[in-house]
Amino acid sequence: MTRLVLCAGSTRTAAIDGISAAGADADLMAHTPSADAEILTYGAPVRAPVVPVSPTGCPTPAVITRAVVDRLGIDTTIVDGGLAEPTGAPTVTVGARVGDDIRERDPVSSAPGAFAAARQFGRKLPDDELFIAETVPGGTTTALGVLTALGEAGILGRDDGAVSSSLPENPLDLKRRVVGEALEASSLSPGDAADEPLVALRRAGDPVLAVVAGIAAGALETDTAVTLAGGTQLVAAAACLRHRGYEGPLGLATTSFLDADPAVDLDRAAAELGLSVTVTDPGFTDDHPAMAAYERGEAKEGAGMGGALALADRANLPMADVRAGLQEVYDDLLADADEQAPEP
Amino acid sequence: MTRLVLCAGSTRTAAIDGISAAGADADLMAHTPSADAEILTYGAPVRAPVVPVSPTGCPTPAVITRAVVDRLGIDTTIVDGGLAEPTGAPTVTVGARVGDDIRERDPVSSAPGAFAAARQFGRKLPDDELFIAETVPGGTTTALGVLTALGEAGILGRDDGAVSSSLPENPLDLKRRVVGEALEASSLSPGDAADEPLVALRRAGDPVLAVVAGIAAGALETDTAVTLAGGTQLVAAAACLRHRGYEGPLGLATTSFLDADPAVDLDRAAAELGLSVTVTDPGFTDDHPAMAAYERGEAKEGAGMGGALALADRANLPMADVRAGLQEVYDDLLADADEQAPEP
Repeated sequence: MTRLVLCAGSTRTAAIDGISAAGADADLMAHTPSADAEILTYGAPVRAPVVPVSPTGCPTPAVITRAVVDRLGIDTTIVDGGLAEPTGAPTVTVGARVGDDIRERDPVSSAPGAFAAARQFGRKLPDDELFIAETVPGGTTTALGVLTALGEAGILGRDDGAVSSSLPENPLDLKRRVVGEALEASSLSPGDAADEPLVALRRAGDPVLAVVAGIAAGALETDTAVTLAGGTQLVAAAACLRHRGYEGPLGLATTSFLDADPAVDLDRAAAELGLSVTVTDPGFTDDHPAMAAYERGEAKEGAGMGGALALADRANLPMADVRAGLQEVYDDLLADADEQAPEP
Repeated sequence: MTRLVLCAGSTRTAAIDGISAAGADADLMAHTPSADAEILTYGAPVRAPVVPVSPTGCPTPAVITRAVVDRLGIDTTIVDGGLAEPTGAPTVTVGARVGDDIRERDPVSSAPGAFAAARQFGRKLPDDELFIAETVPGGTTTALGVLTALGEAGILGRDDGAVSSSLPENPLDLKRRVVGEALEASSLSPGDAADEPLVALRRAGDPVLAVVAGIAAGALETDTAVTLAGGTQLVAAAACLRHRGYEGPLGLATTSFLDADPAVDLDRAAAELGLSVTVTDPGFTDDHPAMAAYERGEAKEGAGMGGALALADRANLPMADVRAGLQEVYDDLLADADEQAPEP
């Protein structure tokens, strides 16, 4: 049996101007992980007062993940990776708290505890296979922070450090500057945490990444097959696992949009970390606003989209059905958007 | 679409000696709602260090509910109704906290807030139909407390007040005495809270009942069909709804074991509260220890068992399949029991 586990949480790093597109503005962005969890669970936001769309109108990739798991009947579990806002989706608690801006001195003090509890949870899940995904605005910046602390900043193909972005124009210089300040605030040089992924996660990462890594670690210890469902953030999780000594098979399932990102070289990361990578192309076209946004390079990945596409492909679900599902969920979202307003 | 919502939580009233059979002893009983949530979600305990069985070895009714929802593919959601112990099941949070012993002065101070948040949640759920269930050891005593405070102690057929029990020998005298002390501690006479169900829930009830009533209230306000899935505790929830002015159709789905309880007259409650009652007999036999325990009158109902049986019957799932499912889940539980031990 396969379960898709979505780790949903927040880092205040996302509030840095220009870092993330995962929400129309910083206030609304804090609701994105909660809304993603609800969309995955119910098909639409329930408590979250927002429909997660980028400033240009690109819908959250949770819409595609929902369309697929709904059609395939895949079990899903949301784990609270430090949610900033309440969610109406049921969540498993592992003690993760919202991450601070990584330029603070100890931004993710809950990381070690959350990793440990998530690992226990990963050990106990009864499934044969886990797809583990993330939703955390600002997460590519914290992923770069973790990779840099591990001494792996260049693993995605650029020696000065690179990760992908939900924005069409990747603010890589800004991300590198933020990461530089983060390491400085924690008195770390690049590579100083190579043997201590929990230090990398705590000092330069985010709580979601700690939870992803913890669940994966526990699953691997009990011979549960693990596919990391996402992009460069999941590469950072894979690096944490390898740096903690987890060997053996580890999958990464991502989208063709992420693979096409010129900022990153997924093959190099796959080779260095020993990941079997699955890239799935949903065959989006320009004739629907949601699909056109992805075609323009927005969002690219997140909330398990690449993993869901891989599951669809494996189950021989035609991508035309996935696209039809995307349109249905998207239309429901827009219909709901009129009714949504912040609640007291 | 139909969703089964299980409200899981605790009241310290359960620790009164002789009140409840929902766990081998008082310490283990605190884990029962968390374990029930895990069994419903995963088919076995994940984090909870117990397999919920009565002192005589009767397994939790969550085993039957799990067997049915697993076979029918029914969506389930666990709502935290004041859990005393962590659970590995994903839960929706509505602000409920563990209830104190109702002989304390203000045992369920979280009831009004939890009712309000649960009501909002019930309003927003996208389903056409909800089955709402409970798991709360000691819950029949707090149900009697609520019914008494509402002036409905006799609604189940005995003027001196009655509810069912998970024990074969219903300690009704003890329950009445506890309820008497509870009302006294809150300076209430029977019926004093007839117009204020939230006062009844707060002063003589438990947080689970507040959450059940809140979700049902929200669902009814948005024309979602509601079936209260359980026994006399759900009758108390129905009484709260009627006393708050909710009219219109309201279902109650329970087991033949509950219906056969000589302590209570379900027909009278149904008539007075305008409930359409569905009683389903799973056709248990004496030749399996779990089924034999139910045949002896243990457990009777709980964790949505009666609702699940009604859903099975409606979907034409043969009761032989339900019984086979019970045996499978039960066998898995016993296999797991050897591996389970409290974690640090």
